[in-house]
Amino acid sequence: MRRLANRRQQLALACLLTLLWPLSLLAAEPLPSWRDGPSKSAIETFVKAVTDKGSPDYVAPAERIAVFDNDGTLWSEQPAYFQILFAFDEVKRMAPQHPEWKTTQPFKAVLENDHKALSATGMDGLMKIVGATHTGISTEAFMKNAKAWLASARHPKTGRPYTEMIYQPMLELLDYLRQEDFKTYIVSGGEVTFMRAFAEKVYGIPPEQVIGTTFVTAWQPGATPSILRTPKLAHNDDGPGKPESIDSIIGRRPLLAFGNSDGDLQMLQWTAAGSGKRFVGLVHHTDAKREWAYDRQSSIGRLDKALDQAKQQSWTIVDMAAEWRRVYPFDAPADEHVQ
Amino acid sequence: MRRLANRRQQLALACLLTLLWPLSLLAAEPLPSWRDGPSKSAIETFVKAVTDKGSPDYVAPAERIAVFDNDGTLWSEQPAYFQILFAFDEVKRMAPQHPEWKTTQPFKAVLENDHKALSATGMDGLMKIVGATHTGISTEAFMKNAKAWLASARHPKTGRPYTEMIYQPMLELLDYLRQEDFKTYIVSGGEVTFMRAFAEKVYGIPPEQVIGTTFVTAWQPGATPSILRTPKLAHNDDGPGKPESIDSIIGRRPLLAFGNSDGDLQMLQWTAAGSGKRFVGLVHHTDAKREWAYDRQSSIGRLDKALDQAKQQSWTIVDMAAEWRRVYPFDAPADEHVQ
Repeated sequence: MRRLANRRQQLALACLLTLLWPLSLLAAEPLPSWRDGPSKSAIETFVKAVTDKGSPDYVAPAERIAVFDNDGTLWSEQPAYFQILFAFDEVKRMAPQHPEWKTTQPFKAVLENDHKALSATGMDGLMKIVGATHTGISTEAFMKNAKAWLASARHPKTGRPYTEMIYQPMLELLDYLRQEDFKTYIVSGGEVTFMRAFAEKVYGIPPEQVIGTTFVTAWQPGATPSILRTPKLAHNDDGPGKPESIDSIIGRRPLLAFGNSDGDLQMLQWTAAGSGKRFVGLVHHTDAKREWAYDRQSSIGRLDKALDQAKQQSWTIVDMAAEWRRVYPFDAPADEHVQ
Repeated sequence: MRRLANRRQQLALACLLTLLWPLSLLAAEPLPSWRDGPSKSAIETFVKAVTDKGSPDYVAPAERIAVFDNDGTLWSEQPAYFQILFAFDEVKRMAPQHPEWKTTQPFKAVLENDHKALSATGMDGLMKIVGATHTGISTEAFMKNAKAWLASARHPKTGRPYTEMIYQPMLELLDYLRQEDFKTYIVSGGEVTFMRAFAEKVYGIPPEQVIGTTFVTAWQPGATPSILRTPKLAHNDDGPGKPESIDSIIGRRPLLAFGNSDGDLQMLQWTAAGSGKRFVGLVHHTDAKREWAYDRQSSIGRLDKALDQAKQQSWTIVDMAAEWRRVYPFDAPADEHVQ
């Protein structure tokens, strides 16, 4: 009997070890697509410092707010912001209902794929395109349009759905932070409902944690009330608009912030200026082979002033080419076992 | 040995039962300050319907959004909105730095407690008082002012701190909903930072789940950046402003909404018009003895159109006098064991 009991104990111990084995692996390696290097080390050191109850830098879970820019930080933004490519496709889809667009700029340029004529219409032309495709309908109708486009559109370079052009290392970072009781937010210049159309499914970020550019809306009463999107901009969530919306909507200063361009600078400054330990990071697009390489000279996602300040203040600058094992989830994890 | 083992088993069973006993009590009685009656029954029936996995009305936890008005729904609002009483006290506190207020309306009226002269300045006067006491400083400085007032000010009728004049039955409802994986939000005409000064401590509602009226803010760069509150109104979170902010900030339609006045009507309509089962409730101030009794004729918290619609649509109307065992946490639970 005693010997049997011992065998049972041994068996139970073996079962327990088998069950715990993957857990211990998981705990040891929360960021598998990050190569061992300064960024991974800085992230892990920071997270341990603010979550370890014995640490002098410990922060209560309720205060663990992490904010992420979207374009160029969580997904790609080349050859143009994906939301702009959506707007162009929407102009084409809606054209049959707008015969006047055949002869009116900037719509004519979009319909004829005339990049030169489109550029000539400038920011004013772009705003007209965004207005025509993003407003004048209810939030629900716009959400439906965005989802339909995301389901069918393909990126001109990769041929992939846009929602697959997300950064695998950043997905792992979001997961890692949530496992450590951080609340993960998007704070982006993108329009808020467009981002909500995919953020929950793709990033695990629920609509109420997506902050972005908004249009003034108008309550439409009736038996089936709705919320109409008007063409008037309510909030431009770029540059100083980012700390302003964080203050207005979250009401706490982030503990961690990640961006990739000068449009994120004030959000990073606001985070860095908080008391106690804070983490401030930039995704640096250095990978012309697997993604794109651009910074100071780019018209999209320009990283110039924020790069200077990151260097001065020793913020974390993620060298995409050197520090990421893979960029997209669909990339082969070529060197996963090499490192 | 065998007998000892049996005794150990009995002991373990006894321990287990002892541990589970209070849990089972808790599960059986989540709303102890609500008398058995139509409102308590409607709440419990609704919560069970949307949280029971076997129910045809089951809703996933991520979609369980509950929104509450604040003034008159979670705490009292008589003889005036507490935030207005705060503004009056702030005028008095700030008066030494503003000698011109002694001779300028509406400030003169506040300093002299001249209700008639104050009334004569109307909404314009009130806006001047709110502007002078709520803006021109950083969010952090305003938060500090609000917290200092909440810690020291006392209600003219009860002599209690304002943060004690909260409704015990609603605290229990908030707890009950959170236990059932609802995310509880405030959506109120009150200014957002004023409410954040106490909502987390008093209601267990974190700042990022407080939505309210906001002022336009302006990023102030520098070594210690700050967010300046300007006197320009950004969003008036009353009436149609409530579903608009829910749409903009939460991005999901609430599953449950509670209000107490016509200013909540559109939020209630928006909630009620959602697909599937929804809960819409009104706190009806019927208790002149323990709180205040007012509805259709009141200038504060007028409940007229929303009361008509609640009756038409069979929304839940909470009769405070009849259905609440106690109003405030400091009330003696007089009839707790009578029912």
